[in-house]
Amino acid sequence: MNDKAHLKIDACFSPFLYPVYAEPDTIVVIIDIFRATSAMCTAFEWGAEKIIPVATVEEARDWKAKGYLTGAERDAIQVDGFDFGNSPFHYMDERIKGQTIVITTTNGTQAIEVSRNAYQVVIGSFLNIDALCDYLVDQQKNILLLCSGWKNKFNLEDSIFAGAVMEEISKRSSDFWHGDACLALKYLYQMAYKDPVKFLNYSSHKERLAKLNLKKDIKYCLTPNQTTVIPILRDGVLVRL
Amino acid sequence: MNDKAHLKIDACFSPFLYPVYAEPDTIVVIIDIFRATSAMCTAFEWGAEKIIPVATVEEARDWKAKGYLTGAERDAIQVDGFDFGNSPFHYMDERIKGQTIVITTTNGTQAIEVSRNAYQVVIGSFLNIDALCDYLVDQQKNILLLCSGWKNKFNLEDSIFAGAVMEEISKRSSDFWHGDACLALKYLYQMAYKDPVKFLNYSSHKERLAKLNLKKDIKYCLTPNQTTVIPILRDGVLVRL
Repeated sequence: MNDKAHLKIDACFSPFLYPVYAEPDTIVVIIDIFRATSAMCTAFEWGAEKIIPVATVEEARDWKAKGYLTGAERDAIQVDGFDFGNSPFHYMDERIKGQTIVITTTNGTQAIEVSRNAYQVVIGSFLNIDALCDYLVDQQKNILLLCSGWKNKFNLEDSIFAGAVMEEISKRSSDFWHGDACLALKYLYQMAYKDPVKFLNYSSHKERLAKLNLKKDIKYCLTPNQTTVIPILRDGVLVRL
Repeated sequence: MNDKAHLKIDACFSPFLYPVYAEPDTIVVIIDIFRATSAMCTAFEWGAEKIIPVATVEEARDWKAKGYLTGAERDAIQVDGFDFGNSPFHYMDERIKGQTIVITTTNGTQAIEVSRNAYQVVIGSFLNIDALCDYLVDQQKNILLLCSGWKNKFNLEDSIFAGAVMEEISKRSSDFWHGDACLALKYLYQMAYKDPVKFLNYSSHKERLAKLNLKKDIKYCLTPNQTTVIPILRDGVLVRL
């Protein structure tokens, strides 16, 4: 596609499909726009020291019992007995400064779980998109954009973010060959970028969030560049890069 | 999304993802535009009586030894020792009239394999799109568009066909609620439909086929309504509906 391309960027639409796309020496970008990865970026921006992502509510409860600040969400709703859900606004909280917090969510933490043995795992959202793309281009490694989706199914908001990353990386570098999934995403993003809120009007998860009166979250999660922080997974724990 | 909708249409981008999308009482449409499902529609149009889809080249070889006309393709190339590959033009052959033929391909027959226990499995391609959509709307059942992809990865040509089916079904009926994958596909198809050959210019499989000098196949496989035949799976064997 491009004679200069010597690296690969591809996109995977579901954690369930990850084994098909997993390759050595690849940086995996975890994407869960509504709202886990947006919340994680916000937590670091507000001073969290570490985030421990856990797959189950039970694990999160164990950490809570040990005294950790803990966020738990299932089906877009904060689970009873926890400090936070997965709204970014929950993490704009002075209490998290310097703390290790524990988070479990319906989709995003599952995506981290499946890819945890990758060469590198970083967290992406519109909130840190420019910093993320600068970093990715600098690394000169293959990139896999791993969309968390909704219960292992394709979703639109993670996909247009992956398309936005594709677009930003193409602007910065011609080193990357991209697969069909990325081509499709770039096209989708080109349709979406002028008004992503409107573009997502008919998406299933936006409907789900709108019913829960979370329009403010939707708008915030689609706002680029609120932070330059890039969360990265080290030994199973997210830290600031 | 639509108050009248009481049925569901969704799309799955890889046979590997099928378990996530599988639901009872659903008609599965197998899609492998370049070229298995295009070849199958052509074979029935040219008078084939039955097609036995098999997953492996070894199984196909066993059938060949028993005297059956047999097609086998791997990595877009006809396997040595077989009567056909998976070009539709191979099946425009008087020899197949009234015959049972056996076919194995890289992607399409794998998609049939994973979904064989579905309520109903039918074969879709641009070549039979109108007949297929008329049939699907008449059945009043949920629909899953199963893209064969390329070695379990997303591909563009199967996806724009799924988008075309979505579009045609929306024109015919407002009974169907559709998931995010279908929304994305509809948008993609809207970008592609004026000139799908050009739209696919940068897709990986089109490149693969173009290198093999198969431009004539590409053009034919993207030509709507060359047949009204709908192949359907009954007891593991494809027959004319």
